[in-house]
Order: sequence, then structure tokens, then C-alpha cells
Amino acid sequence: MTDIRSIGCGTRFCVVIGDPIAHSLSPAIHNAAYAALGLDFVYLACRVADVRHALAGMRALGNFRGMSVTIPHKIAVMQYVDEIAAVDRSIGAINTVVNEAGRLIGLGTDGPGAFKALKEAGVRLEGQRVLMLGAGGAARAIAFTLMRQAALKSFTLLDINADLRLGLSADLAAESVTAISTAALTPAALADAMAQADLVVHCTSVGMSPQHDRSLIPAALFRPGQVVFDVVYTPLETRLLADARAAGAQAISGVEMFIHQAVLQFERFTGENAPVDVMRQVVMEHLKA
Amino acid sequence: MTDIRSIGCGTRFCVVIGDPIAHSLSPAIHNAAYAALGLDFVYLACRVADVRHALAGMRALGNFRGMSVTIPHKIAVMQYVDEIAAVDRSIGAINTVVNEAGRLIGLGTDGPGAFKALKEAGVRLEGQRVLMLGAGGAARAIAFTLMRQAALKSFTLLDINADLRLGLSADLAAESVTAISTAALTPAALADAMAQADLVVHCTSVGMSPQHDRSLIPAALFRPGQVVFDVVYTPLETRLLADARAAGAQAISGVEMFIHQAVLQFERFTGENAPVDVMRQVVMEHLKA
Repeated sequence: MTDIRSIGCGTRFCVVIGDPIAHSLSPAIHNAAYAALGLDFVYLACRVADVRHALAGMRALGNFRGMSVTIPHKIAVMQYVDEIAAVDRSIGAINTVVNEAGRLIGLGTDGPGAFKALKEAGVRLEGQRVLMLGAGGAARAIAFTLMRQAALKSFTLLDINADLRLGLSADLAAESVTAISTAALTPAALADAMAQADLVVHCTSVGMSPQHDRSLIPAALFRPGQVVFDVVYTPLETRLLADARAAGAQAISGVEMFIHQAVLQFERFTGENAPVDVMRQVVMEHLKA
Repeated sequence: MTDIRSIGCGTRFCVVIGDPIAHSLSPAIHNAAYAALGLDFVYLACRVADVRHALAGMRALGNFRGMSVTIPHKIAVMQYVDEIAAVDRSIGAINTVVNEAGRLIGLGTDGPGAFKALKEAGVRLEGQRVLMLGAGGAARAIAFTLMRQAALKSFTLLDINADLRLGLSADLAAESVTAISTAALTPAALADAMAQADLVVHCTSVGMSPQHDRSLIPAALFRPGQVVFDVVYTPLETRLLADARAAGAQAISGVEMFIHQAVLQFERFTGENAPVDVMRQVVMEHLKA
């Protein structure tokens, strides 16, 4: 189904909620995927301030199948769903709600999206030393997912905010046997951690457009064989990734995490295998435009 | 916009709610009209049991522009909107809700749809003697609208249910100077009223498929020059209309009321003049299929 005139009484719909929402790529990505597979679905965007009633409406409106949740509602929405997986309770935020006949299931696809991006890039996680920069929402999602999916050798967490990094490291330690260390993000701590790390995961917004010439990591600290993953994806190649690549490290853009979090939502909403290439193409076209 | 892939963050949506809802023509009618004018709108159908939370969701979800309301929610929905016109409070039911930046305006388009159907058929209302059969929801909508739009000579209401007919006639009398009479629907009362009536409005479900061979009015009671309007539109020509036409009366199908109630909703939702012919064509195709 690609024609608006085919929308009928059986058409299910999904919605992204957030505030602001005007620049979300989600409608373009998901509708392209529905069209590619000929599914009887449409995907809309809704600016929402009142999360509680948006969720109450989702429960009441038949055919309202799925919801993507973005800033600022990823934490607040948790209290209005009926069921959340343990890992997502640990992370403390969700980005997805599925309506199962009026019962709302909350889950997160940011962490699994990052994990899938790493796996598809051929990155080995077992026995690796991981350095994470930043301890905010994206960091929590990725840290808990990696810890659960692989037996890491060690996990080092650096941030300038002590509350965030100590909170996350304590939460991780409560669930994992991996050796966890944390420190304030100082030049010395960073240099020391970079010398050890097999996988570097950058989870702050430093380097995002329009400040695309910035990077938290001095170029000299990268080394060949390292894997560097940046959650930032505007620009597609951040200064941090460019520096890592120039030093012979493997650079992985946050755009792959972004694509795969949408892929996982699509598959949860529709029950179909996602047309990943179609979805990637839409993302790339928009980001290059 | 006719391609699903054009749906984006600015796309507004409307929904028909009811229970059941699987056979509603509204999505087909409205989406065809959006496509014909290239509007950035889509129209969906939602089975709803919990009207209160469906309305709360409408208020909370940005881009949720309009709602068509059908059985069994036309009365219950009134208590959850912020504003209702006096005529619709008198009628006691609404079929339309418009979301004006989070403020929900309720209104009815069934009565105005019937009025428009009569006007477009060239029917004169001023100074006419009107006979209405049935005193249920459709009757209330049409009766209050006709009374407000034209100075009728007289209005006669027949029904087998005394509570309904006495309630409606009292409510009408409280608002109008037209001479109103009411009686039980007996063969004698019907024959007497038919002999007087310039316009006959049939507002019961008698004659609806599959019982399309039935009619409340004996064929011998119609006369040339009379106008006969039947709210039933399945079949398109009911036994009642066929008998009226055979007797030289002007017969007007309820399908025109159905089309025009949708036209009025469309215009309220979008602010554009409706492509009436496109909408009529969709209705006719579905009813003939």
C-alpha cells in the first residue's frame, strides 16, 4: 500500500511523540518501510506536552499500534505503561510503546540499536576493555545493553558530572560481574583510559552540528586496532570519528545506532523483518540534504 | 499528497471512532478527498470503547485534528468536549469533534447534511407542511435543523414510541413558533398526515437492507408534487422512495445526507471546499459494490 486512498478501517498507525517534533525523521523512515513492504500501516508525528493523556488515548484508540518516544518524554512515559522489561527499568528510560489490545508494553531500542550497529560492523565484545565517555541517557542504554549481551573484560566510565557517573557505575555494578571503574573526565584520566581501551563509546553531544569541529578526545590518543563508536550522527562523520579513522582505528557512526533503533521499533510494531536498506537510504538522504 | 511516503511531521490526521467500526466508509471518503486536493492529511478508523480517554488522547496528541463519531458514542462524547453549539445541545448528540489547539469543539453535521441535501435537490422549505416519521437520533438532528433554517407552516411527528415523540415535540415547541403536532403512528394518523404533507421525512430504519422490501408508508398515500426524503441509503433506492417516485413525488435518497454530513466534516477539519463529486463517487462505488 503506497496510496493514501488505500487507507481504510483496518489500517494501523504508529506515532512519534516529543516536543519539539517538527524535525523528526521517524515518519519518513517508517512510512518508507511500510510502503516498501506494502504494509497496511501509516506513521505520524505528534507534538505532545501531556504524556499521560497521550498514552491514555493510545490505549483507548483501536488501530493505534505503536509509539516512538523522544525528548523530553523518555523517562516520564515509563509511569504510564503497563509493563516494562527489567533491562529498561535499569536504564531508566524507554523510547518505544507497543499497544497489545489495550495493554501498553514499554521498551527501549536505543541500547539494542547500538549493540546491533556494533555487531553488524563486526566488532567483538567478549573480553574487551570498554571506555565510555558520558553517563547520560544514551550512555545508560548502551552500557546496560553491552553488559548484558557480552562478558566484557572491563568497563571504564568518564564524565564531568559526578552524580551521573557514580549513579550509573553503581547501577551497573549491582547487575554485573564486569570490573567497573569510573573517574572524572580529566585529560590525565582520559589519556590513561584511552591507552587501555579496545572499544571507545562516545555518548555526549560534543561534536554535534553546528559545533562539528569539536571532539572530547585528542587525536593523538587513538591507535590502530581500536574501535571507536560515536552516538552523534550529525555530521555523519564527526571530528572524533575522523580523528580515529586517521589514526587507523575503526570508526562507527551513530547513524547506524539511529537506523537500528528504528529497525527494531518497526519490527516490534509490524511483526515483519524491516527493509533495513530502505530505511538507511531515507536516513542518509535526509542527513545529506 | 497521495503517497504514504509523503506523510511527515506536519501531516494532520482525523479519525472516525465507533464500535463496531470495521465497515465505516469514512476513511475511504475522506482520504479520497484529501488526495484529490493534495492536502497533507490522513484519515483513520479506530474502534473505541473508552470514549473519555479517546477524547483525552485527541486533546493531548498534536496533529490530531478531527474526529467523526458514530454509533454508539454520539451522545456520550458530548460530555468530554469543551464547547458545543446550542443547536447541538438541543439535538442531544454530535457526530464531529474538532481539535483547536487542544480545545475540543463538538458539533453535528447530520442535520445540516440533510438540510444541504434538500437544498441541493431544489426543495423549498419556507411555508411548507412537514411530516416526520420517527423521533430517534436522526429525527432530532433533522427536525431541529429544519426548524432553525426555515419558517415551516407546520410540523407533524409520528412515532410508535410515545416517550421519544412527546420528548422531541416538546423540545421543538420550546424553541420554535411553528405549529407542531404529534400522534402515535397508526394507519389513520399516517393517512391523515400524508394527505397534508408537502415534505415527508422518513427517519426510521424500516426498509434498510436486508429488509429492503419494507416501507412504513402505503404506496397509495403518496401524491404528485410531494417531496419524500428517506434517511435510509442502503439500498440507494428504498421501497419507500420507489413508491413515492412511482406516484409522481420527488424522491431524495439518504445517501445525499450521508455525503453532505461528510462534506461538512471535511470542510470543518481542513478549512477547504470539499471535492463533493469525488466524495460522492467513493460513496456510490462502495454502496454499489
